[in-house]
Amino acid sequence: MPWADSAATVRAWATERAIELWVAWEDDLGPLGSEVVDALGEARDDGARLALLEADGAGDAGPSLFAVFDAMEANGVDDVRRVGVLGASAGALEAGQRSGAGAIVGVVANGDRQARRDLVPAQPDVIVDIRDLEALDRERYGSARPHRERLLLNPGPSVVSDRVHRAIAGPDLCHREPEYPALFGRVREKLLEVAGVPDDWAVVLLGGSGTAALEAMTGALVRQGRALLVCRNGVYGDRIATIAGRLGIRVVSVSASHTTPIAPGTVAAALDADPAIDAVALVHHETTTGLLNPVHEIAAITNARGIPLVADAISAFGSEELRLDGSGIDIVASTSNKNLHGLPGVAILIVSPRAQLRAREVTARSLYFDLPNYLDAQARSTVPFTPPVPATYALEAALDELLDEGVEQRRARYRARMDFLDRELERLGLVPVVARADRSSCVRSLPLPDGLTYEALHDAVRRDGHVIYAGLGEAAPTRFRICVLGAVEIDALRGFVGSLERALAGDRLPAGRHATSPT
Amino acid sequence: MPWADSAATVRAWATERAIELWVAWEDDLGPLGSEVVDALGEARDDGARLALLEADGAGDAGPSLFAVFDAMEANGVDDVRRVGVLGASAGALEAGQRSGAGAIVGVVANGDRQARRDLVPAQPDVIVDIRDLEALDRERYGSARPHRERLLLNPGPSVVSDRVHRAIAGPDLCHREPEYPALFGRVREKLLEVAGVPDDWAVVLLGGSGTAALEAMTGALVRQGRALLVCRNGVYGDRIATIAGRLGIRVVSVSASHTTPIAPGTVAAALDADPAIDAVALVHHETTTGLLNPVHEIAAITNARGIPLVADAISAFGSEELRLDGSGIDIVASTSNKNLHGLPGVAILIVSPRAQLRAREVTARSLYFDLPNYLDAQARSTVPFTPPVPATYALEAALDELLDEGVEQRRARYRARMDFLDRELERLGLVPVVARADRSSCVRSLPLPDGLTYEALHDAVRRDGHVIYAGLGEAAPTRFRICVLGAVEIDALRGFVGSLERALAGDRLPAGRHATSPT
Repeated sequence: MPWADSAATVRAWATERAIELWVAWEDDLGPLGSEVVDALGEARDDGARLALLEADGAGDAGPSLFAVFDAMEANGVDDVRRVGVLGASAGALEAGQRSGAGAIVGVVANGDRQARRDLVPAQPDVIVDIRDLEALDRERYGSARPHRERLLLNPGPSVVSDRVHRAIAGPDLCHREPEYPALFGRVREKLLEVAGVPDDWAVVLLGGSGTAALEAMTGALVRQGRALLVCRNGVYGDRIATIAGRLGIRVVSVSASHTTPIAPGTVAAALDADPAIDAVALVHHETTTGLLNPVHEIAAITNARGIPLVADAISAFGSEELRLDGSGIDIVASTSNKNLHGLPGVAILIVSPRAQLRAREVTARSLYFDLPNYLDAQARSTVPFTPPVPATYALEAALDELLDEGVEQRRARYRARMDFLDRELERLGLVPVVARADRSSCVRSLPLPDGLTYEALHDAVRRDGHVIYAGLGEAAPTRFRICVLGAVEIDALRGFVGSLERALAGDRLPAGRHATSPT
Repeated sequence: MPWADSAATVRAWATERAIELWVAWEDDLGPLGSEVVDALGEARDDGARLALLEADGAGDAGPSLFAVFDAMEANGVDDVRRVGVLGASAGALEAGQRSGAGAIVGVVANGDRQARRDLVPAQPDVIVDIRDLEALDRERYGSARPHRERLLLNPGPSVVSDRVHRAIAGPDLCHREPEYPALFGRVREKLLEVAGVPDDWAVVLLGGSGTAALEAMTGALVRQGRALLVCRNGVYGDRIATIAGRLGIRVVSVSASHTTPIAPGTVAAALDADPAIDAVALVHHETTTGLLNPVHEIAAITNARGIPLVADAISAFGSEELRLDGSGIDIVASTSNKNLHGLPGVAILIVSPRAQLRAREVTARSLYFDLPNYLDAQARSTVPFTPPVPATYALEAALDELLDEGVEQRRARYRARMDFLDRELERLGLVPVVARADRSSCVRSLPLPDGLTYEALHDAVRRDGHVIYAGLGEAAPTRFRICVLGAVEIDALRGFVGSLERALAGDRLPAGRHATSPT
């Protein structure tokens, strides 16, 4: 379901209940049965149905998954993920699990600690006192629940597919067994394919966010007593400088405004002026404003001088063009949960052969971020620390999805979406702060129209199921951002543009459920 | 399903197919239909059934989830999670998703890139060329698939419940929206409840492994020019010293052998000898050998001198007794995926009020591990970096499960399991290297019997579905470990003991499928 294929899908996310049909068995609930009926009265007002099944004529078999399916058919519900099973016994909850129901709820009498304890091994999603059932339905499964799928127009994590969500729930494994190196090997190969580099490049996966990747990258190539040249025209360039400072690395900076690409000539001049510079750090795509830096031109300059370039491609890798092999780019830092459409939890480093050698000349400034330690472990088919296995499962599914689509096709889809958005924004009089030629294919920073606060705009479109993002960096309070990453189709953006247009027109009456419901 | 409730469950994991029944629609597959039948021939030899459904008499409705349920009933399959749906069109795959099927497989003609691309938005688990379907079934869904649920007897990640696995697949969210602080707030409260400390203690969650928590802990409280006293009687104490060295912190050590608890008097003497010591680090439970250190006695000594104690409780928190409030223990480092029964990805720090103040006197040695940065963000209801949201969902479910069971009951269950295991090991002549009084309730390090290599023992029990763990530290090659964490009941251990007994007896003929199958 989390594929924003159309405006209708996003509207349904914003307005529908998560659970359409509750199923329970009278015999199983026993004396709790009438209380369940009472508790779910409000859920029924909210559009939910309750199928309270009588004892099966067949006799002793107990709650059966097939009774769940029959109840679906009788109630016209055609998605078992939108069915919830309520049970007071392990047998009923087990039937729910076997039916594939989207919610499995154990119900106990108020304050009955022992009953609660007894239901734990049946593994319901939640065990609830009967007095709390009504609130549980409202807050977790009802149409007004706050926590739900939304069209995320922030710069990642984004909306990702069910394929990826299903994958993250994969089997438990011990990372010292053969399954982990096999998983890592497949993910490595797929990342190298996306990167377009040969097998002598290395991949390091760390548990952590993009900033973890940045910290590992920043400390990796600068030897003791030498300096890092940091290119700064946004918050993320500044972040690299901050990290270097924390690690005791001397920083030399070249800068530009947040809306201006780093000029390659300034990098050349800085390198020529300071022979102690041991590496150059550049943000490929500054998420601050949606600005692309000229990574290939700058890499040509650093490469000509034999200085490695490390690139923060956290919000670029997978959808912006990046030619790595032979270009002079030596480390690419990225993350699972942005343009690759995986889920948060894996920090990614892709490391050139030259950088693998250089990293061994550096006295490590950390254990967790010590890249040669990871490479040495890989050579022994192992890993130094417990890897984030579930997020790695999700990353593999996301990479499969990307390769199934095709890397070029993915890039084209990003561009087409953004072309559509740019046209619509222009129509609404919203002009991105970055010049057209320098814009990325996923982030736009826009001036807030006069008299409209970010909070008001944010809240208006959120009511329709859309999440935009605040401005960042210089002039942040006067800007907002719209970012299009993940499983989002143009028709879903069309719905968002309509919502945005209403908000800009001062029509604060939200569309969707709230506009049409009698409340 | 991942609840090792009995030997039979573990045996089923080791021997059964993941998918019992494949369902597809003739009309949907079209010309691929007969190739699907051929490809799954081997799957049928492996016990799978194939329901190739004819066009529905009802006409134009297309593939329906109810047809999946009918096929289950007709084939005697009573768990939709063990059903796989094969489809060549979005409609069939969508019906599979709506049915809750455990596998959704898109099938395309060999090399048909466009068909593959077209199926991506239908979000199948995998898209396969018809020539690869047979191998896919064998490697991912068949009885001999290498990657499967097993009884994990390593020191985490362990077998965790379906409740936790289901939770990790929760909705995408933007961590700058109210949903994330709400999630964090609930997890924080539940962790403080497990820890038994009041609300003025802080919780910091980092994306990363236990070692990430260790690195954040190690650097947090030692001011410039001062020293860390590290208590060392295993690999994890040594790891803290290594981290401190990387961070440029002077290390003073007190040591004991890997089978001897740290003597509190040695800590007192070291503190009295070196007034530059700014904090003491201790491993509560040394996973190296399964040894408990006298954390409360040592905390009394450090506390009397006003020196904070930081504790690695990575393989202890949640199941070993740890009295925090007023004890002089100032930071507890742990992780989501060990004794708390969550999934890997979240590093946990629980921080006393005193340590929160001290941390602000320390010049940060990292950005990613800068605790005051996280605390400041919390004060503004936000988070500095993208948090590992899915693993945090799983952690919340695991904490709910723990609190539903009861913290005391969980501890008692750990002890009962280990008492059972100790008795059985004694019967088999296997004596843990740590004296009874110093043993934890989850890890045993044992001498390998004469003439038996770890690899031979490991492989023998693995064939029955059990994963043991290698020795670590001094004398590692002569030892192995058995660790009981997670959703494991005594009857499952009984099955493991039988497998171990056969291996020790030199009966390398594995039980389960391999022993009884005609191969």
